[in-house]
Amino acid sequence: RNFSIVCIPGDGIGVDITDAAVQVLSALSATFGTFTFQFETLDWSSKNYRQRGYYAPEGGVEGLKKYDAIYFGAVGWPDVPDHISLWQMILPIRTTLNQYANVRPTRILPGTVSPLAACAADPSLLDWVIVRENSEGEYAGHGGTTPSSAHALHTVATEVSIFTRVGIERIVRFAFEMALRRPRKKLTMVTKSNAQRHGMVLWDMVFYEVAREYEGRVEYDKMLVDAMTVRMVKSPQTLDTIVATNLHADILSDLAAALSGSIGIAPSSNLDPTRTFPSMFEPIHGSAPDIAGQGIANPVGAFWSAAEMIRWLAGADGSSNEEGLVEGTGVGHMVDAAECLMTAIANVTERGVKTRDLGGESGTKEVTDAVCEEISNV
Amino acid sequence: RNFSIVCIPGDGIGVDITDAAVQVLSALSATFGTFTFQFETLDWSSKNYRQRGYYAPEGGVEGLKKYDAIYFGAVGWPDVPDHISLWQMILPIRTTLNQYANVRPTRILPGTVSPLAACAADPSLLDWVIVRENSEGEYAGHGGTTPSSAHALHTVATEVSIFTRVGIERIVRFAFEMALRRPRKKLTMVTKSNAQRHGMVLWDMVFYEVAREYEGRVEYDKMLVDAMTVRMVKSPQTLDTIVATNLHADILSDLAAALSGSIGIAPSSNLDPTRTFPSMFEPIHGSAPDIAGQGIANPVGAFWSAAEMIRWLAGADGSSNEEGLVEGTGVGHMVDAAECLMTAIANVTERGVKTRDLGGESGTKEVTDAVCEEISNV
Ligand SMILES: CC(C)[C@H](C(=O)O)[C@@H](O)C(=O)O
Ligand SMILES: CC(C)[C@H](C(=O)O)[C@@H](O)C(=O)O
Repeated sequence: RNFSIVCIPGDGIGVDITDAAVQVLSALSATFGTFTFQFETLDWSSKNYRQRGYYAPEGGVEGLKKYDAIYFGAVGWPDVPDHISLWQMILPIRTTLNQYANVRPTRILPGTVSPLAACAADPSLLDWVIVRENSEGEYAGHGGTTPSSAHALHTVATEVSIFTRVGIERIVRFAFEMALRRPRKKLTMVTKSNAQRHGMVLWDMVFYEVAREYEGRVEYDKMLVDAMTVRMVKSPQTLDTIVATNLHADILSDLAAALSGSIGIAPSSNLDPTRTFPSMFEPIHGSAPDIAGQGIANPVGAFWSAAEMIRWLAGADGSSNEEGLVEGTGVGHMVDAAECLMTAIANVTERGVKTRDLGGESGTKEVTDAVCEEISNV
Repeated sequence: RNFSIVCIPGDGIGVDITDAAVQVLSALSATFGTFTFQFETLDWSSKNYRQRGYYAPEGGVEGLKKYDAIYFGAVGWPDVPDHISLWQMILPIRTTLNQYANVRPTRILPGTVSPLAACAADPSLLDWVIVRENSEGEYAGHGGTTPSSAHALHTVATEVSIFTRVGIERIVRFAFEMALRRPRKKLTMVTKSNAQRHGMVLWDMVFYEVAREYEGRVEYDKMLVDAMTVRMVKSPQTLDTIVATNLHADILSDLAAALSGSIGIAPSSNLDPTRTFPSMFEPIHGSAPDIAGQGIANPVGAFWSAAEMIRWLAGADGSSNEEGLVEGTGVGHMVDAAECLMTAIANVTERGVKTRDLGGESGTKEVTDAVCEEISNV
């Protein structure tokens, strides 16, 4: 089977790590021989914005619908205000393509060290997956500033978070299904419903309604977002699957990545669980202007994201859709390929072939070559 | 000089630790002999709510204006929805009394251990003060749910964050003044202005405007809230003073407390920097129903909050008001008393007289007695 993948490397180290991901994906299809990837690359970048005045051309995001999956690097550059680059690119893709579930697994890889003393001693304490609502909430983009110049003494600005019952229900159900498929079958829901008394209270309510369907099958509890950071630091072993709003999960997933050792290893999948449109895979780190172009970016987050993409394309992630569970669609080799890639990454980090953020001395190319070699030696 | 302090112990361990704080405050005035505290206690609690239907009686919050300071324990109990207890009590106090600056210092106390391996080895790496906007933003309480029952399939709820130029400017200026008085003179401002493009963008703009006044005197930078959690975990030594919105600083200050060892030690001051109304001092932990009434709550956060209250009453905190800097008002003994209390706490934790959350075996009373004894031996 052939899959058409559209790559959007974006800015800074997004370019380096997308290149690296394409190499390992090609190595996998060469080794396994039962699937191929056809890559196309779009230059939607800050450079493009400077030269032509836009990131994606008119109709560009719609045009993504024809691919099987989207592989995204990173976007953002100091000379463009972030809220412009993001609202012209990554945020419209997530919402237009119905990618309402952003899935962010976190574990401590062999040969890497958690900054938490307890997890450095026993890396198995930290094994989480954060399910982030990816289509509404604090990222709805609503609100405004008045007077619009914002320079008047009495200027008032708002940010309006929008939560819909439909939006909450589908992400909560997705998270319960995810928890069901994990060995520990636990789900922790995060809100700030003590201080925010409208949308957050609706979250809690819908969560408990959906929870009734999973009673006895998934163990669940509720945390306030502030207290959740404490629990992540002090009792990582008590957490398993986590579901939270767009903003809360954004914050918690960066924290999770840091606690696992480096934001450079953390993957994310922007999924349309209905499989109507292509899903998008991207490491959670940004464009890192400070280290861009030096060949030292950590490609592990990009590889892990590639592994998640393969699993998704194989339908083996088992995520729920409107009708229920998508069962593995029999693309068995691809599931093996994703496993193979994860093993290759682990072997390489374990051997100490690591970038600086992980305490190693290798560059992007060395790590990439090492992973490709592991793959070809399977 | 005599100070009238109104105590609101609230719920759960709020009661235990307020008792403990009153004891050490009394020990301090007995030892120093130059100032006294006259305590009044208000039973604004969830029990009161169950029996009488309210936390604070009609006009209660207004009535607080006649005291010199407010000492607050904690509020919240499982049988009252949190958004009711908080909106009837702590949140109206903060806003009605113009307590727009919530100040939250974090350090690692002697004899306590940070969960971060790097800080366990060198506790001096972590020395922060978080300045939290305490009057608006995500805690404005605005928004709604429609249809109001929230049970309809198409229910939509909003949370409306409100940011005013006046509100941003005063907290940013407060934070710069705070940074100026700290040895390292650094200020990090936190927003999420890449994804939230109205109020957050106004924050950034006003921050850079105010920053111009401090150019060359305070070193400042800007972080996104998600990336900030990574920096706190990975490079604590690069941070000093931090200013953030109501919600962001709520989250970051819990994280800070956890990284310093325990949320049980963390203090907070809700300040009206104009000194028009009394300020309020409270440990940042909650009512902890799971350990309430067992005599094991950590009173250190309560003591540290009491020390901050004394400093504030002495006018020695140097916080800015509308006219400029309030200089120490000469209540020199009180500044010594606050120092004495902080030293007493440090000596006691160093000796290993600690509650369970800090890895010790002592109860609230033992710790309190030990601190009082240290004070009387000065
Ligand atoms: C780049 C930015 C919009 C993004 C987000 O906040 O969603 C990033 O932080 C992430 O976590 O994917
Ligand atoms: C109790 C709650 C309203 C409060 C807050 O979120 O402000 C608490 O978490 C705090 O940090 O003081």
